[in-house]
Amino acid sequence: MSTTIETILNRRSVREYTDETISEKDINTILDCARWAPSGLNNQPWKFIVIQDENTITKLAQCTHYSTIVLGSKVLIAVYLDNAEMYHHDKDVMAIGAAIQNMLLACVELGLGSVWLGEILKQEEKVSSILEVPESYELMAVIAIGKPVEKERMSSRKSIAELTFENKFGKKWIGSN
Amino acid sequence: MSTTIETILNRRSVREYTDETISEKDINTILDCARWAPSGLNNQPWKFIVIQDENTITKLAQCTHYSTIVLGSKVLIAVYLDNAEMYHHDKDVMAIGAAIQNMLLACVELGLGSVWLGEILKQEEKVSSILEVPESYELMAVIAIGKPVEKERMSSRKSIAELTFENKFGKKWIGSN
Repeated sequence: MSTTIETILNRRSVREYTDETISEKDINTILDCARWAPSGLNNQPWKFIVIQDENTITKLAQCTHYSTIVLGSKVLIAVYLDNAEMYHHDKDVMAIGAAIQNMLLACVELGLGSVWLGEILKQEEKVSSILEVPESYELMAVIAIGKPVEKERMSSRKSIAELTFENKFGKKWIGSN
Repeated sequence: MSTTIETILNRRSVREYTDETISEKDINTILDCARWAPSGLNNQPWKFIVIQDENTITKLAQCTHYSTIVLGSKVLIAVYLDNAEMYHHDKDVMAIGAAIQNMLLACVELGLGSVWLGEILKQEEKVSSILEVPESYELMAVIAIGKPVEKERMSSRKSIAELTFENKFGKKWIGSN
């Protein structure tokens, strides 16, 4: 079992999935992790649509350049911002980012692969029409999930030194020496 | 050692800290977790300011109703959106939410307590002036960190059933029965 920090550091986007299905128990664990994210005033501005219906998945695949990922996934979770629960747009959007990150991390521990799809937002209207979502909800992301095809997945990040200052902007963080 | 899912489910905001200082190693681990969050096009739109200087902490405490939390914390991490790296406001703000969530989860595993401060955004101009941050950076949050005072911390969330639909909006997710 990895530690939480190892899970965070080793998570990678997974875009190729086997044919194995995902259990309802695992989906509920993923949703449980999402709902325990923090949000401003604990307003929980998120709604989730779990999509396993093949016909719906096929239609959604037509809303993105990444149709292969969508068609290959076993579960999609569409994440919506519920404007009725909104109190501060940026804070609510950040809270949704935290909820999504919880889902991605939960997937790692469950032995599942996932990828955060953002490009599909370009077709928000079409997606929301397929999913019959009222206009007061904003599509934030679609998470594609499946059992990962085994392969090495590389990624990179800027160093702590490039990203971090000490006590004030422009002063290099000493810890990164 | 908790599993990642346990860490996610058991994390609570911690607002009362002991006098114990936080090691540079722990701060670097927290920053490492932040920078490994996913972001759209891997653009990493975040910058961090690690604040341990007492004089700066005292000044920042005057920018929020939660001055007691700020004054009691041993480290503050101010999180900024770098508009030069921005490509899509909502996606970048979500990515910052994911990076913040990674930091909060890392704190749990390190035996540290943390709280995501949002109310301080009301005084963004004052905060950015204290920290000498150029105008092209947007304050997203301040994370207060310290060794937690031991106490039970309760919180609650809406149920999966209240938040989740199956295949289309309005149809209750069967897994939540």
